[in-house]
Amino acid sequence: MKTFSKPPLTIDFTNAINPGPAGAGAIAAPILNEAIVKELKLALADNYRMRETGEIAWAELPHEAQAIADQSVVFAKTIRNDFENFVQMGIGGSALGAQAVLEAVGHPYANLTNQRPRMFVADNIDPDQLNGLFDVADPKKTCYHIVTKSGSTPETMAQLFIVLDRIKAAVGDNWRKHLYITTDPKVGALKKWAVEENLPTLHIPPKVGGRFSVLTSVGLLPAAVAGMDVYAMLEGAKWMQIRCWHENPEQNPAAWLAALLVRADRELGIKMFVMMPYSSRLYRMGDWFRQLWAESIGKRYDRDGKEIFVGTTPIKALGATDQHSQVQLYVEGPKDKLTIFVEAPFDGEVKIPIGLPGDKALAYLEGHGMGELLLTELRATERAIAKAGRPSITIKLSGHNPEAVGAFLYLWEVTTALAGSMYNINAFDQPGVEAGKITTAALLGKPGMEAEADAINKELAAFKKIVV
Amino acid sequence: MKTFSKPPLTIDFTNAINPGPAGAGAIAAPILNEAIVKELKLALADNYRMRETGEIAWAELPHEAQAIADQSVVFAKTIRNDFENFVQMGIGGSALGAQAVLEAVGHPYANLTNQRPRMFVADNIDPDQLNGLFDVADPKKTCYHIVTKSGSTPETMAQLFIVLDRIKAAVGDNWRKHLYITTDPKVGALKKWAVEENLPTLHIPPKVGGRFSVLTSVGLLPAAVAGMDVYAMLEGAKWMQIRCWHENPEQNPAAWLAALLVRADRELGIKMFVMMPYSSRLYRMGDWFRQLWAESIGKRYDRDGKEIFVGTTPIKALGATDQHSQVQLYVEGPKDKLTIFVEAPFDGEVKIPIGLPGDKALAYLEGHGMGELLLTELRATERAIAKAGRPSITIKLSGHNPEAVGAFLYLWEVTTALAGSMYNINAFDQPGVEAGKITTAALLGKPGMEAEADAINKELAAFKKIVV
Repeated sequence: MKTFSKPPLTIDFTNAINPGPAGAGAIAAPILNEAIVKELKLALADNYRMRETGEIAWAELPHEAQAIADQSVVFAKTIRNDFENFVQMGIGGSALGAQAVLEAVGHPYANLTNQRPRMFVADNIDPDQLNGLFDVADPKKTCYHIVTKSGSTPETMAQLFIVLDRIKAAVGDNWRKHLYITTDPKVGALKKWAVEENLPTLHIPPKVGGRFSVLTSVGLLPAAVAGMDVYAMLEGAKWMQIRCWHENPEQNPAAWLAALLVRADRELGIKMFVMMPYSSRLYRMGDWFRQLWAESIGKRYDRDGKEIFVGTTPIKALGATDQHSQVQLYVEGPKDKLTIFVEAPFDGEVKIPIGLPGDKALAYLEGHGMGELLLTELRATERAIAKAGRPSITIKLSGHNPEAVGAFLYLWEVTTALAGSMYNINAFDQPGVEAGKITTAALLGKPGMEAEADAINKELAAFKKIVV
Repeated sequence: MKTFSKPPLTIDFTNAINPGPAGAGAIAAPILNEAIVKELKLALADNYRMRETGEIAWAELPHEAQAIADQSVVFAKTIRNDFENFVQMGIGGSALGAQAVLEAVGHPYANLTNQRPRMFVADNIDPDQLNGLFDVADPKKTCYHIVTKSGSTPETMAQLFIVLDRIKAAVGDNWRKHLYITTDPKVGALKKWAVEENLPTLHIPPKVGGRFSVLTSVGLLPAAVAGMDVYAMLEGAKWMQIRCWHENPEQNPAAWLAALLVRADRELGIKMFVMMPYSSRLYRMGDWFRQLWAESIGKRYDRDGKEIFVGTTPIKALGATDQHSQVQLYVEGPKDKLTIFVEAPFDGEVKIPIGLPGDKALAYLEGHGMGELLLTELRATERAIAKAGRPSITIKLSGHNPEAVGAFLYLWEVTTALAGSMYNINAFDQPGVEAGKITTAALLGKPGMEAEADAINKELAAFKKIVV
């Protein structure tokens, strides 16, 4: 295992217990008090058990995904040789992690540079967006990575059907080399078809849920295609894996985080967690975190079947941009938020030169770096939020590098699992989205659902419409 | 004034009062009950007064910005002729509206098409992002629109200083034609310098605050440069202006919206408003709305100086993407959200062809359009959220066109102003962001602030650091 001269990630909890005059709005110190340590040990035991039974196979990915990484690198080599464009088609967990990783480590305007292939993640079924994509990425020169764990996600499968048509129209019998598949190793229509057609296929291990799948080919293949060191990403995750399963909560950063987030909800009534990186390239990490936390922790029933309607809301923000948009509310509004700042040294710096002649008010900027200004604003915002009596923490990455990204992703996965145990919920299902899927299928005329469709249409017609 | 064959915008409130079994979680009908109508009339009167005194000059922009539109169109013609790239540099209200408008009406991958100039909005001071921008947009071929109402926003001014250096290095004495300025007509170092250097300059009227400035050159110049019909945008705003100042709340869509949002907060304890367009191109409207609402309504004190810590939190989401990320929480989590769906007919459609051979489960998709699938999913999500006893509304735009965008923007400005009056707050200031600005300047060594810097550093050093 790799050793790091500098830790890929540290978390500064200082402002979680120290905000405000006389600590108003703070978590009562220490964060790991006796009661929560007891609870954390139970949560860890619960998750050790799930690791034993293989229920949370994502926990093993830092090591287990080595083979997937190898395969991804091999596929990536061909793709980089043969194609001008790489399009990942997937939604939710099949897209968000890939986007986050590509942006965190890539060039901020990668698709406008000479870098090939250009990278796209098509995560919606917006027809104008898809038509637009065909405008700029000729199917002849494009490879599509179709990602759906179940092999039956309607949005992604609809994208596949359309793309398949376009590729066949463009290249005829050569269509197969334009498709790469990531799905379950056994289940689903997509897997069956991929075998029949002998398509290059990568697998999401059966007990790895979509939102915990970023360290499979869902994230590793696009990362490899973009030229990123995917092994370094796994090394960062391994480094974090050792820490996050440490049986002593004091030495376990995921335990610290879970303790803070659960206590903030219970003790301070804090219902919103704002993830606010001070780095444009880390902004999309917030999208990945939003899914992980919201789908895992937002639950109607606990594991004993009791109705609890639990779930804090993850929000993404961006520093310094949102200082000019959200910070007014964060500082002066209700004390219902905890802010999770994220920072990382930048790859480069830009010196601020001398300003406008005669403008003394901003002369102090001269000679400072723009990144220095940004991170000074972070310090200032941490302080402003603390002074207003609201808790925050700051996650510090070692850089915009794959090690730090791997560590960050793995940290939040374990944190979420531990919080799930503390809330006594199943953090790995999403029963609340079924109703919408059924309604959609019924309204689109799925055979056998005529009765449902009838009932839905009647129900909708019965409402008195109020339109202004 | 233009008449529209189809209204640019309607709002469907049906699901605000009808959700759930037995109406659980709904707003008690009617939305405009006697008490709220009384309050709305006072709020309207309060805003009529502010229109009279000119305090809310943004309210007049649909008409008053005609001259700015004319100037923008003239400037845009030159810019389109002379430059390959257009970069708007600004932060908060100087960026968010422009981005929202460009995305809502433009090509979804505009910068990868042959369309020139390519459009950028540089809204952060991330050095890697700025270096990346210089990689892809050669200053020689780039025009910069510098936007800061005060003419002293440190982030934007730092960007200007850097860009000025680069342009001068690239084109020497010809640097002036690369710069366009939008700022206050009188105040500020930027205005003074622009006059001295005879730079093309556009003005934000003095009583138009940053977050209410999208219908000035902040939004109109980039829109015109991108080839959009800015007059149509103003026509949409005019159409909405008549409605939103209607003295009868029943006929006033802004009054309806303000009533709903304020009542949801007060009566149902709903603290989060999720703006969720079912259109990728409308996603950034949520960013603009986030600033407008958060900075205007998030306030510590009311207008009588009473401490109230008021403010609901605006959140952005995207359909169908966030069905696979946030909807689980929205349906099963706490009943603390109201969802604002937004939809618009798409410019085109993509038919879903026949699927995989032998896959009966998804055969029902065949022959439907992808946009049809997306909007059916919207219907399904509206229903799922209603059945779970949570209120929602749906804003329907006539299309991805400038009229609808203008109407949408103006609607929310008046809604926000009315809500501000109902909360008895000043919706037009942002006192909570001053502390951070002062800390930043002190820490960067602004002359005269040595004592503050000293105090801050001592204070920070006094905290016991907790790092994990």
